[in-house]
Amino acid sequence: MQQITIKALARELNLSVSTISKALRDSHEISPATKSRVLQLAARLDYKPNPYASSLRGKKSRNIGIVIPEVADSFFSLAINGIDATVKEKGYHSIICLTHEDFKNEQAILKELQNGRVDGVLMSVSSETTSGKHIRALMEQHVPVVLFDRVLADVPAAKVITDDIASSYKATQHLLRNGCKRIAFIGLSQQLSISADRLRGYENALREHGNKLSSKHILTCTPDPKKNLAAIKKLLQQKDRPDGIVTAVEKLAPLVYQACGQLSLSIPQDVKLVCFSNLELAGLLNPSLTTVTQPAYEMGQKAAEILLRLLDSKPVHKGDMQIMIPSRLVERNSSGEGN
Amino acid sequence: MQQITIKALARELNLSVSTISKALRDSHEISPATKSRVLQLAARLDYKPNPYASSLRGKKSRNIGIVIPEVADSFFSLAINGIDATVKEKGYHSIICLTHEDFKNEQAILKELQNGRVDGVLMSVSSETTSGKHIRALMEQHVPVVLFDRVLADVPAAKVITDDIASSYKATQHLLRNGCKRIAFIGLSQQLSISADRLRGYENALREHGNKLSSKHILTCTPDPKKNLAAIKKLLQQKDRPDGIVTAVEKLAPLVYQACGQLSLSIPQDVKLVCFSNLELAGLLNPSLTTVTQPAYEMGQKAAEILLRLLDSKPVHKGDMQIMIPSRLVERNSSGEGN
Repeated sequence: MQQITIKALARELNLSVSTISKALRDSHEISPATKSRVLQLAARLDYKPNPYASSLRGKKSRNIGIVIPEVADSFFSLAINGIDATVKEKGYHSIICLTHEDFKNEQAILKELQNGRVDGVLMSVSSETTSGKHIRALMEQHVPVVLFDRVLADVPAAKVITDDIASSYKATQHLLRNGCKRIAFIGLSQQLSISADRLRGYENALREHGNKLSSKHILTCTPDPKKNLAAIKKLLQQKDRPDGIVTAVEKLAPLVYQACGQLSLSIPQDVKLVCFSNLELAGLLNPSLTTVTQPAYEMGQKAAEILLRLLDSKPVHKGDMQIMIPSRLVERNSSGEGN
Repeated sequence: MQQITIKALARELNLSVSTISKALRDSHEISPATKSRVLQLAARLDYKPNPYASSLRGKKSRNIGIVIPEVADSFFSLAINGIDATVKEKGYHSIICLTHEDFKNEQAILKELQNGRVDGVLMSVSSETTSGKHIRALMEQHVPVVLFDRVLADVPAAKVITDDIASSYKATQHLLRNGCKRIAFIGLSQQLSISADRLRGYENALREHGNKLSSKHILTCTPDPKKNLAAIKKLLQQKDRPDGIVTAVEKLAPLVYQACGQLSLSIPQDVKLVCFSNLELAGLLNPSLTTVTQPAYEMGQKAAEILLRLLDSKPVHKGDMQIMIPSRLVERNSSGEGN
């Protein structure tokens, strides 16, 4: 059902939007007769005033929605801190909504956010999300959206990303240089922009090095840690066991350590490992973990800055529609010589 | 300013609450004349319908607010998962609001949540919070609240906690048994229920063992990791250097490892360490970290269950007003013999 707006009331009664707005607010500038006409029509058409909409109260909700898959991941918790620090300066609060990697949840959340609860949305899509229709619907309700990290090509929003292809290429090349011959890749659903890009970087490096690509060496992680552990163990029990692993998902790193422990394989002597991860503890693991460290805080900060510009009706330059902040490879012992 | 309620409108017009509610919803059961009277009075008294309130739309917002200090802590990210899994089953969404350990933020957030945006709130207070006035104000607006982990004595809400005194006592006793003579304690602000209780457990164990308590061995952590690292190093450079540490805060564990590394002290040979932590990686650290592991998921789950009962207007038994779920000491290498 179409929502009845103040505009529609104005058209119906042949009054100005401002008159309707004032009548609804019981302004002394409007006659009792006009107020009564407005209120009766409003009731008849089931007009639902939105207490957070600027049109009615002359002010915004001052809330920013952060829609992300989860918080048990240091990328997202750092990105949240970057966002919060940026929006707080401008007097905004943020509200975090978790999709738990579930597309239906994500749709329901964005629908919720359509009714003026938030002034704008910062978002990283779920691993199940393949279409941006629900995001476009939100934008059509004049809720600006900025995507970060996990983005969708079919959404005409500003995007803040990192160089996933290049950094996965670098990670794979690093393992090749350190002598790995059979490198495996573990990622999330390839529907996901970042996961597809990281796989591409891995494949580019192997191809360039003249290595054969083998589907047996590519694993897609599921939501179930037990299944993931079993799949990693199976991967490491193949006849041509991988001697290197690039994992595109932070939470898989501990599972690779566990699987190696259970199979009596040493990291890095038997298997060298690089993980996309912002874990503060990476350097304290046994062995310390080589990571592709993403600019999580900066990405959150930058995405929030662009959203604030949109909320201030300031122009967003064309160059700000897709911002790329590079990740860095931090070499530690898990990918080293192991001497 | 007092909010005008449907009740007040009913009193003024000598009509029933249900008649007012139906008139506002333009029900066919109400005559046009009555509707007009209701709408005019509503306008005159500046009655603001709350689009999320059950009284007006016959339905709730179906949102639960989770108000917590931060998400970069595995206790809170696990608790969120426990909450989300529980409320989702009943068709609720949760909205996470972070206080970043700032009391003013916390006050502002609770004020925001007063206007029907959420049906109920699950909350763990900031380390700056000493009074529950803002929480009581929310409860007076008929938004039920359940506190978990970090609770306040002066809030008459249901509380879900863990056995902080007993588990800190056990952790300290474990270090004493393993030969530590000078055990230090690092906590958050002692205004915080959990921090005061953990300090108490530590002191009880030392006292019972006949050890002297020394204020030089008690450290309060600040929001600044650099200052914390400096303070830990200073602690470990004292003449009577501690040979054991109980830390009540997860994020301090990596700093203790770093400080020891920089001072060439070995864990556990020179300093034995136990940390309150739900880190999934605790077992993979070098050395693996002995933890007091809290029932984070279960605490979130239980708190959500009680809130759902309150939202269903079901009775909450007296025994459910304060629920304690025990933590467990998981012994690993950081507190062991180090052979």
